[in-house]
Amino acid sequence: MAMDIVNYMRARAAAVDAALPAFVRGLGGAQPRLAASMTYSLAAGGKRLRPLLMGASYEIFGGKARDILPAACALEMVHTYSLVHDDLPAMDDDALRRGRPTNHKVYGEALAILAGDALLTDAFTVLTSSRYPRSVGPERVLGAARVLAQRAGAMGMVSGQAADLQAEGFLRGPKLAPARRSAGLKLLAYIHLHKTADLITAAVEMGAVLAGAPAKDFKALSSFGRELGLCFQVADDILDVVGDKKKLGKSGSDARNRKLTYASLLGVEGARREARALLDRALARLRAVPGAAAPKAALEAMAGFVYGREN
Amino acid sequence: MAMDIVNYMRARAAAVDAALPAFVRGLGGAQPRLAASMTYSLAAGGKRLRPLLMGASYEIFGGKARDILPAACALEMVHTYSLVHDDLPAMDDDALRRGRPTNHKVYGEALAILAGDALLTDAFTVLTSSRYPRSVGPERVLGAARVLAQRAGAMGMVSGQAADLQAEGFLRGPKLAPARRSAGLKLLAYIHLHKTADLITAAVEMGAVLAGAPAKDFKALSSFGRELGLCFQVADDILDVVGDKKKLGKSGSDARNRKLTYASLLGVEGARREARALLDRALARLRAVPGAAAPKAALEAMAGFVYGREN
Repeated sequence: MAMDIVNYMRARAAAVDAALPAFVRGLGGAQPRLAASMTYSLAAGGKRLRPLLMGASYEIFGGKARDILPAACALEMVHTYSLVHDDLPAMDDDALRRGRPTNHKVYGEALAILAGDALLTDAFTVLTSSRYPRSVGPERVLGAARVLAQRAGAMGMVSGQAADLQAEGFLRGPKLAPARRSAGLKLLAYIHLHKTADLITAAVEMGAVLAGAPAKDFKALSSFGRELGLCFQVADDILDVVGDKKKLGKSGSDARNRKLTYASLLGVEGARREARALLDRALARLRAVPGAAAPKAALEAMAGFVYGREN
Repeated sequence: MAMDIVNYMRARAAAVDAALPAFVRGLGGAQPRLAASMTYSLAAGGKRLRPLLMGASYEIFGGKARDILPAACALEMVHTYSLVHDDLPAMDDDALRRGRPTNHKVYGEALAILAGDALLTDAFTVLTSSRYPRSVGPERVLGAARVLAQRAGAMGMVSGQAADLQAEGFLRGPKLAPARRSAGLKLLAYIHLHKTADLITAAVEMGAVLAGAPAKDFKALSSFGRELGLCFQVADDILDVVGDKKKLGKSGSDARNRKLTYASLLGVEGARREARALLDRALARLRAVPGAAAPKAALEAMAGFVYGREN
């Protein structure tokens, strides 16, 4: 890779890490235990991939990522809420996340539900109440809020989660007949598109909207986000099977819950081929976007990082 | 009352009832069972008080309520999500809501959590993606989204819910010492302000913001909303004790859960005096707002209706 993507990501993630708790502190009058529960999950770390993608997407059109840091943090808050709710006993019932006890294990189920609700709601507080450079006027901020809501709600992520529930138990029984495998792949494509790819797509789309990108560049970046998001989820499925559980900091619940995954339907090798094809398609889309070279190289390197996590 | 408030409210609520499922249908690609779960709770009826308050507040400044129907429906979606999550087993564990089984009783706990999440998220989809008259530009819509997020998140409603959790068990033990009663009243004021009053305040504030109201009128309406919202919750506390359970369509869970309420702390008569004082303060605030007489009379009559529910 032409750039040191690991150091690039570490440095930029540090800015997000620092800003997130400050945004929670800025929510005046918040109930202290609720604020603690929100901060607990926000501070759990992670690569901050979505904020970084948004910043690089924005920089393609000439701005500086730090100028849209509130929007990047808003997206990370939505991502974090989705993890908190996904881990709940009624959902995946996970005890560990990034090597630490999940929110409901520390704060109880009721407060974990509420912390997720508040992270989601206050993503819109942070997005709509923050200051941006003069070029980022109300129309662009409103457009970013629209993208976020559409990609995160029933047109997007939450429908992916609902389909994922429906898919539980799909693998019960000793063998998968060909027709059922085909139905499984179709359902899985819907799940991956919405559960994972939509929020990664939102990242690059919000960056483009905030930058006032031309429609054709917005479209190309949106496609890049979709293919990259699908690649991310296939890699995640593989990691759930072959990853080092300790290093991953989670407990391999997909296999335990007999969830529908690419690894379970296509085998690990088949899933790896699929991930590679998705990466190639993502990069082809990215190359169609004109603009600054450095942020495009950063997006390309981050895509390689997403693909390479399991190698 | 000078106007037939019951017919006024019925007619205007019908427009909201008709629009809400159409907005869910408009969420393209939504997972069918998720959409059904969202629609189930949206169609459960209710007075649509918050949308009606928003419409009347908007009309004070010369517009027509139907022009901001998407914003009114967005607020009702946020209110509905809060009921769905509040009824969950980990929260109030209610089996009935408005005389029908609660969402999780019909769709299961996981889908009820997701339906709540989607109603909340897609409130912002509906608010930010809809068309408004030309006078309602992006700056006003963005302002309405900001009010909604601030009043519904950790600065508002969700903190009220979190404090409500904390207050559970407050009444355990045979007697309440004076110091504990005083602490209880302080905690209760916080709960009522955020759990209930903030979203009713949001209703009149969003109407004013969308209408481009002058700052001093916005402030007066905001105060009206706060006092009315507090009055609403005190009346609700009384209803939970003295109301006809069948007519009310819920199961008196406050008393069952030994929750902190005005009725439990001040007695029913004390709570009634408090409700009356709050109504009077709300109406005084409303009188300070200039503008069209008919929508102001409607707000006044709705306030009387809120107060009178338990008489």
